Amino acid sequence: MTTNEPRIIAMIPARMGSQRIPKKNIRLLDGKPLIRYAIDLAMGEPGFDRVIVNSESEELGRLAADAGAEFYRRPDNLSTHQATNEQFTLDFLHQHPCDYVVMVNTTSPLLRPATLARFVEHLKKSKVDTLLSVSAEFAECFFDDQPINFNPLKKTNSQNLVPVHKVIWALTAWKRESFLTAHEQRGSGVFAGTFGLFPIPKDESSDLDTEEDWVLAEALIEGKKKSSKPRYWTPSSL
Amino acid sequence: MTTNEPRIIAMIPARMGSQRIPKKNIRLLDGKPLIRYAIDLAMGEPGFDRVIVNSESEELGRLAADAGAEFYRRPDNLSTHQATNEQFTLDFLHQHPCDYVVMVNTTSPLLRPATLARFVEHLKKSKVDTLLSVSAEFAECFFDDQPINFNPLKKTNSQNLVPVHKVIWALTAWKRESFLTAHEQRGSGVFAGTFGLFPIPKDESSDLDTEEDWVLAEALIEGKKKSSKPRYWTPSSL
Repeated sequence: MTTNEPRIIAMIPARMGSQRIPKKNIRLLDGKPLIRYAIDLAMGEPGFDRVIVNSESEELGRLAADAGAEFYRRPDNLSTHQATNEQFTLDFLHQHPCDYVVMVNTTSPLLRPATLARFVEHLKKSKVDTLLSVSAEFAECFFDDQPINFNPLKKTNSQNLVPVHKVIWALTAWKRESFLTAHEQRGSGVFAGTFGLFPIPKDESSDLDTEEDWVLAEALIEGKKKSSKPRYWTPSSL
Repeated sequence: MTTNEPRIIAMIPARMGSQRIPKKNIRLLDGKPLIRYAIDLAMGEPGFDRVIVNSESEELGRLAADAGAEFYRRPDNLSTHQATNEQFTLDFLHQHPCDYVVMVNTTSPLLRPATLARFVEHLKKSKVDTLLSVSAEFAECFFDDQPINFNPLKKTNSQNLVPVHKVIWALTAWKRESFLTAHEQRGSGVFAGTFGLFPIPKDESSDLDTEEDWVLAEALIEGKKKSSKPRYWTPSSL
């Protein structure tokens, strides 16, 4: 059976031995283990042929199965925190023929289904080799003490600046063939071939890296549930 | 009486008619009106000769007085949301002789006294004309679809990248004379003369611009008070 649709696999990389937030993938965020957010998100996207958790941990494998996803047990030598994105993606692509792989990171649990859907649509239409999710920074930026996106001789309103785009790794897509070729030719496939930038809304682009990020994400989820009425200072209240 | 210390004024700009978060300066954040965070922070900094709230609102003026700060009532034509930083700072500097002005924005209530102290020290030592507070972004960044701080031929660990610095306007310092001269010469003093970049820690660099930012800041303050014990998924808990 052939179709014109590209075969797209969602890969969810996850380790049990996370460093800065211990065991973050099974830690409960608003009552649900972190990795379930990424799995549920990917399972709900009709553009994916398969959803596969890429981990060394049988426990995470069980969690994947419970949620209806597949489990790829990566080799032990790729299960340490030294293992790079390049290495585990290369291994995964060797094992899983497809047209594209979309890496869905567990560290962005606030991503909305509609945003993922737009990402997948964009991937199919643009046909880039690498599609990176970015945050659009509408602020004056410097590199090496030099202005990047503004003229210091004149202050412009921030919302009128050309934004700097910051890669956030919430979602990343690669054309399998391009990744493998780039890896073979120059030892690196992560920025293979032509690339596209896909802006993610600010309130979905949280990146759970530290305990403080975790507190923030939890608060944001709770804050969305209760809409507390603003209270104001009055002259007598101080 | 003369001293070798430069005369530094803290200016806290505030309007009652804020746009995206209505009346944010008197809205209670964890029980305290937003503007009080900036006032209390500035009042606690020994490097400031004066702390002056720059506003059109008598109500905010009263709040300033309650907190021991001074109040400069800006002209009515500078009280709309169209009034620019350039305009109200120029007006303020005309009215207030000093060596430096440090603008303390009310939108960054999480700033710590120690960070402000380091900022003021840095200002005195570096003697730059403009000192900008920035957030250091250790991530791959693009401008105009071109990589800024990384080589796409090779993936580098993010923490090893040279960061892009994003201006956050939490704290900004200007040498009065340089601002006035630059304004006269080219109509803009905001990026006057030589400038320095002062990185602010991530967890202090919140910028309250939307309702969601507010929810986040409130959550972060609450999250710092209670340190909730992490809970984890166990095979039986799903």
